[in-house]
Amino acid sequence: MSDLRVGVVGVGVMGADHAERVARKTSGARLVAVSDADRGRAEALAARLSEGLGGESESTARHSGGTAYVDSVRVVEDPMELIAADDVDAVILASPGFAHADQLFACLEHGKPVLCEKPLTMDAASALRVVEAEHKLGRQLIQVGFMRRFDPEYAALKQLLDSGELGRTLLLHNVHRNKSVASSFRSEMIVRDSMVHEVDVARWLFGEEITRITVYTPKPTSLVAEGAFDPQLAVFELASGAMADVEVFVNFQVGYEVRCEAVAERGSATVGLGSGVFTRAGEHWGGAMPADFRIRFEQAYDLEVQRWVDATRRGEIDGPSAWDGYAAAAVCEAGLESLSSGTPVDVALADRSKVLG
Amino acid sequence: MSDLRVGVVGVGVMGADHAERVARKTSGARLVAVSDADRGRAEALAARLSEGLGGESESTARHSGGTAYVDSVRVVEDPMELIAADDVDAVILASPGFAHADQLFACLEHGKPVLCEKPLTMDAASALRVVEAEHKLGRQLIQVGFMRRFDPEYAALKQLLDSGELGRTLLLHNVHRNKSVASSFRSEMIVRDSMVHEVDVARWLFGEEITRITVYTPKPTSLVAEGAFDPQLAVFELASGAMADVEVFVNFQVGYEVRCEAVAERGSATVGLGSGVFTRAGEHWGGAMPADFRIRFEQAYDLEVQRWVDATRRGEIDGPSAWDGYAAAAVCEAGLESLSSGTPVDVALADRSKVLG
Amino acid sequence: MSDLRVGVVGVGVMGADHAERVARKTSGARLVAVSDADRGRAEALAARLSEGLGGESESTARHSGGTAYVDSVRVVEDPMELIAADDVDAVILASPGFAHADQLFACLEHGKPVLCEKPLTMDAASALRVVEAEHKLGRQLIQVGFMRRFDPEYAALKQLLDSGELGRTLLLHNVHRNKSVASSFRSEMIVRDSMVHEVDVARWLFGEEITRITVYTPKPTSLVAEGAFDPQLAVFELASGAMADVEVFVNFQVGYEVRCEAVAERGSATVGLGSGVFTRAGEHWGGAMPADFRIRFEQAYDLEVQRWVDATRRGEIDGPSAWDGYAAAAVCEAGLESLSSGTPVDVALADRSKVLG
Amino acid sequence: MSDLRVGVVGVGVMGADHAERVARKTSGARLVAVSDADRGRAEALAARLSEGLGGESESTARHSGGTAYVDSVRVVEDPMELIAADDVDAVILASPGFAHADQLFACLEHGKPVLCEKPLTMDAASALRVVEAEHKLGRQLIQVGFMRRFDPEYAALKQLLDSGELGRTLLLHNVHRNKSVASSFRSEMIVRDSMVHEVDVARWLFGEEITRITVYTPKPTSLVAEGAFDPQLAVFELASGAMADVEVFVNFQVGYEVRCEAVAERGSATVGLGSGVFTRAGEHWGGAMPADFRIRFEQAYDLEVQRWVDATRRGEIDGPSAWDGYAAAAVCEAGLESLSSGTPVDVALADRSKVLG
Repeated sequence: MSDLRVGVVGVGVMGADHAERVARKTSGARLVAVSDADRGRAEALAARLSEGLGGESESTARHSGGTAYVDSVRVVEDPMELIAADDVDAVILASPGFAHADQLFACLEHGKPVLCEKPLTMDAASALRVVEAEHKLGRQLIQVGFMRRFDPEYAALKQLLDSGELGRTLLLHNVHRNKSVASSFRSEMIVRDSMVHEVDVARWLFGEEITRITVYTPKPTSLVAEGAFDPQLAVFELASGAMADVEVFVNFQVGYEVRCEAVAERGSATVGLGSGVFTRAGEHWGGAMPADFRIRFEQAYDLEVQRWVDATRRGEIDGPSAWDGYAAAAVCEAGLESLSSGTPVDVALADRSKVLG
Repeated sequence: MSDLRVGVVGVGVMGADHAERVARKTSGARLVAVSDADRGRAEALAARLSEGLGGESESTARHSGGTAYVDSVRVVEDPMELIAADDVDAVILASPGFAHADQLFACLEHGKPVLCEKPLTMDAASALRVVEAEHKLGRQLIQVGFMRRFDPEYAALKQLLDSGELGRTLLLHNVHRNKSVASSFRSEMIVRDSMVHEVDVARWLFGEEITRITVYTPKPTSLVAEGAFDPQLAVFELASGAMADVEVFVNFQVGYEVRCEAVAERGSATVGLGSGVFTRAGEHWGGAMPADFRIRFEQAYDLEVQRWVDATRRGEIDGPSAWDGYAAAAVCEAGLESLSSGTPVDVALADRSKVLG
Repeated sequence: MSDLRVGVVGVGVMGADHAERVARKTSGARLVAVSDADRGRAEALAARLSEGLGGESESTARHSGGTAYVDSVRVVEDPMELIAADDVDAVILASPGFAHADQLFACLEHGKPVLCEKPLTMDAASALRVVEAEHKLGRQLIQVGFMRRFDPEYAALKQLLDSGELGRTLLLHNVHRNKSVASSFRSEMIVRDSMVHEVDVARWLFGEEITRITVYTPKPTSLVAEGAFDPQLAVFELASGAMADVEVFVNFQVGYEVRCEAVAERGSATVGLGSGVFTRAGEHWGGAMPADFRIRFEQAYDLEVQRWVDATRRGEIDGPSAWDGYAAAAVCEAGLESLSSGTPVDVALADRSKVLG
Repeated sequence: MSDLRVGVVGVGVMGADHAERVARKTSGARLVAVSDADRGRAEALAARLSEGLGGESESTARHSGGTAYVDSVRVVEDPMELIAADDVDAVILASPGFAHADQLFACLEHGKPVLCEKPLTMDAASALRVVEAEHKLGRQLIQVGFMRRFDPEYAALKQLLDSGELGRTLLLHNVHRNKSVASSFRSEMIVRDSMVHEVDVARWLFGEEITRITVYTPKPTSLVAEGAFDPQLAVFELASGAMADVEVFVNFQVGYEVRCEAVAERGSATVGLGSGVFTRAGEHWGGAMPADFRIRFEQAYDLEVQRWVDATRRGEIDGPSAWDGYAAAAVCEAGLESLSSGTPVDVALADRSKVLG
């Protein structure tokens, strides 16, 4: 089947990332158009992503085996025009939140599947209208960018909790910290732009709605403007009586950190420590060993093949060479001799400069 | 530019993985042909990968927007024919090691770039002939599948060591363990098939050749056949006098584990603990906090977009829905009210069954 | 100076531990008397602690170099009599909480220093009367058993926070979990007997009083009796506006776990992970390496000497023998030869059975 | 029974530590005499340890309840005189290694139990004579200071391995690192003074003798003098065929680090990571949760009681006061009210300045 032709609306930090992701790292998709209020930004990105495959040798890499090495990415001034365009099969919305409602209605009107960065819209009333309009259409076209559900750690946590292995889940403790934010920061943004992720995490992990919320404002850090509240501490109560707490601290200074500990009847499980799902269960703390090399090195294999494909299209190699294969063979040969003799064995290696001279 | 058309020779565990990787997870590549001594295995794989995008709804997912939903993958009986085929731009060799030499010479002859699983060939002499043949061609076509170089942790370790931040590297301690291996296991395979990875790691991290090797055979585990040596302990000496030790234990029972600690003049750095590069340096142990969300959640974003593309091509969504966006907006609205009032606020949510009923 | 003569009131789990601690592990103190409502329990303990120094060879260890190997511990029926006794210099109160008030007043009356297990008394009014009575006396005699202040990890956390290195402390996240509690458990006990420790931790770490408390009761675990609330989640607000949250979960099933993360303006520090003070600060996560062997092995040295003293008093040794010293010397001698020759060296060891036969 | 009267020979770093340990932290022992080639050093130590219990208020703490607050520690010029003294029941030898042999023979002659710091003597031949002399005496008097056997982590590792839970032990990987050593350092000292600890660890954990040793000298760090070998890598072969490797690196720059991983047939166990026994077994990595508070807080309780005893002997308290007990009671009372009402409750606390004014 043919590739999905994707247009990206809004190419700030997040949108530019998504555009590059579609162009360079996603199977079965092609980036065909971008749109941004800042036309220069859109054009620079389109040019960069039309040009080739990156890497040190970009400039020399325009041709490979006679094939012209260019996928052209259009810049479309009006986002509504991009959404409507015939050659755009699906849309990624990474425009500012206030523009989402109109753009989503346009996607629904043109029957275009859309991946919409959070927030869906700026308030609950308009979000509900979007839900109703999609429902009337009879077909789900909208996906919201709550990406934690795709994080392998969060996904494994969800799976563990749903398995029932730890009993019913009772509590979530969440931490959400940024190194720092711009001086334009306002206290409300902590709730709307940051805490909203934990809102989704709580709804998703518990599989039920949040019915009550309390937002506490502890003594603020002295590293924010007077009057701003950072950190904040919130308590969510869910329909079943389960609860979640969240610390959001957007000027933590140290780095980015997102953690979630789920406390269940027979143990707890934490993600965001950087070491998979960390459990306390059955009188032990720790995690699971990978069963085999495909699990442990899946990402390495993916990167190896993607980079090999990219380099091959540029007419290069980008990894261990035939010499590396030969040298390893020579060492193993000496190793086999040592295995049987039990003594040190010198490695007999050809002179590289003579062979490859 | 057009996609790279890839053929895979050998579709056992590793080759089938690579074939699926090319077909489903790699940007800019298409799987066009597979070959295997076991024709049935090749045909089953080709059928599976020709069919669609996997997922629960595969059978219903043949069409999307009028486009026929099939990329046909050919089965080619003779690997030499696959290598020579006009519609194969590049080859992945995952055939048994003894077949590599001939197939590599064929790739060189036809000018086909090739990603060859280790070992390059079965002995140093034949490997050297491959090196010489490629060198004569004047163009690097062969890449060897030492995939640890692509593991983000190993790559970060290499970068750290090369930065000189810890001074010169003096020692490597490696551990390489499998849960268990088949009963056909022979002691030599530990050296040739397992330890060979650490041979490459040592050569790569130190950037120099191994000059001497000693393989020790400690008291074997009772869980191998009489006469087999598992675990083994090897010491590598490198050209500069640096050293590396390696434990290989292929019947460890617990799971798969690969670790490497590099000891340098001003600290050590370990990978394979599952938590990035773990350093002991500057009077501290630990690791680095990610600077921002794009680093922390890069994999989540990649998976979100890949799965959204896959689902969209099937006419579905595969992630948080518009309702999820709406519910989050409603909770945040209540949160903002609590932020200003300092008291608990109930969440006003529309009745889902009425809205979506 | 002479040893402090200590009497222990209440020898349930905690009191018996304290009694043994005074008798066997504390320098400069002697256990002279115990009292308990269950006289049999007191007598068994007194007998056990009068008998010797424990260890496998207790029964044979009554004499050492002609000295009678017995320190007699008296059983005193009436706790008030124990408190008043001339040969009791100081008292440890590990009786039930309801008995504390009267016993504390008696200690004050007789001028006896007292280490009182928490709670001080059963309610704030009576506790205040104790404070006032001690104050009138003009001399501090009462210490309360909030022992977390003595935990090396908590003490190091306090020191770090007070150093100002991380800026002002803003938030504490506490977790306090027990494996399980008896069926007589009531919800109030979580607050009074468990959470009270975090009350002290918050007051101590912040160095200020708690002004407001909210106790949330999430959906209870199904492993408690109907109507009981476990876990509980509390939020403390302190005088300066700083806050602390606490999860107390006394039927966690997994084991005992007490954790505290302090969040400050420039980083966070966590204790209770079992690996010292774990910090997130300066773009890193991790902990401190010990500066030298005395820090790393302090506990080992303490135990080595305590056990050597205990064994010596029994006329034994309890650790590596002269043979172990000899064998190590023989290996090192071979090692020195290998160091200079660079080759394996056999260890020449005398035949143990002939030497020690 | 009466306390064991201990004399310490050699009061450099290690001996001074041991002297203080006996005087201040060990139950059932008294420090009566010290001896050192540097008489001034011995006198300063004796004065310090005769004076009181340390702490901020040392100078005001000479009397407690009328009892003179002094245990006098004698300085004895000649170590042989100390060993022979009637009021010395047992001896700790922390003198230089070359003095050990004569002093040990003196201990044997006078029938004095002795805890001898490693090395037992300077070479295997003299060590064997010590063994034989003790054996002739018919009574074990000598214990060697291989203190890792007393480290709770090493002790737990030994227990785990001996339990057979992981099958037979096959391999040990050891790391032994110091921050740095004096410039007088010579390569031989790595073997004799550092590696000797791992020699004992290997013999002890395997319960058998080392039969062969190879010491490798990798490229040295540039932070040692020309010609010195640091780090070193050794391989031990044991009687049964089991093996151990050891990295010793005494100029590691980062801090002190001692680790040991035991690899067995069904898993591995590591100590020295600062988090108990870290296992890889049964498809998991991690450690054990403490079963109850006495295990988790054992050290805190020990310190609490030792410091309470010390402070009480000085006429002080050194921990949470009655006010702390009262304030905690007041918070809990408010907490109980919040528990039943479900709302925030203000804490009613008396005015501290009025009560304690």
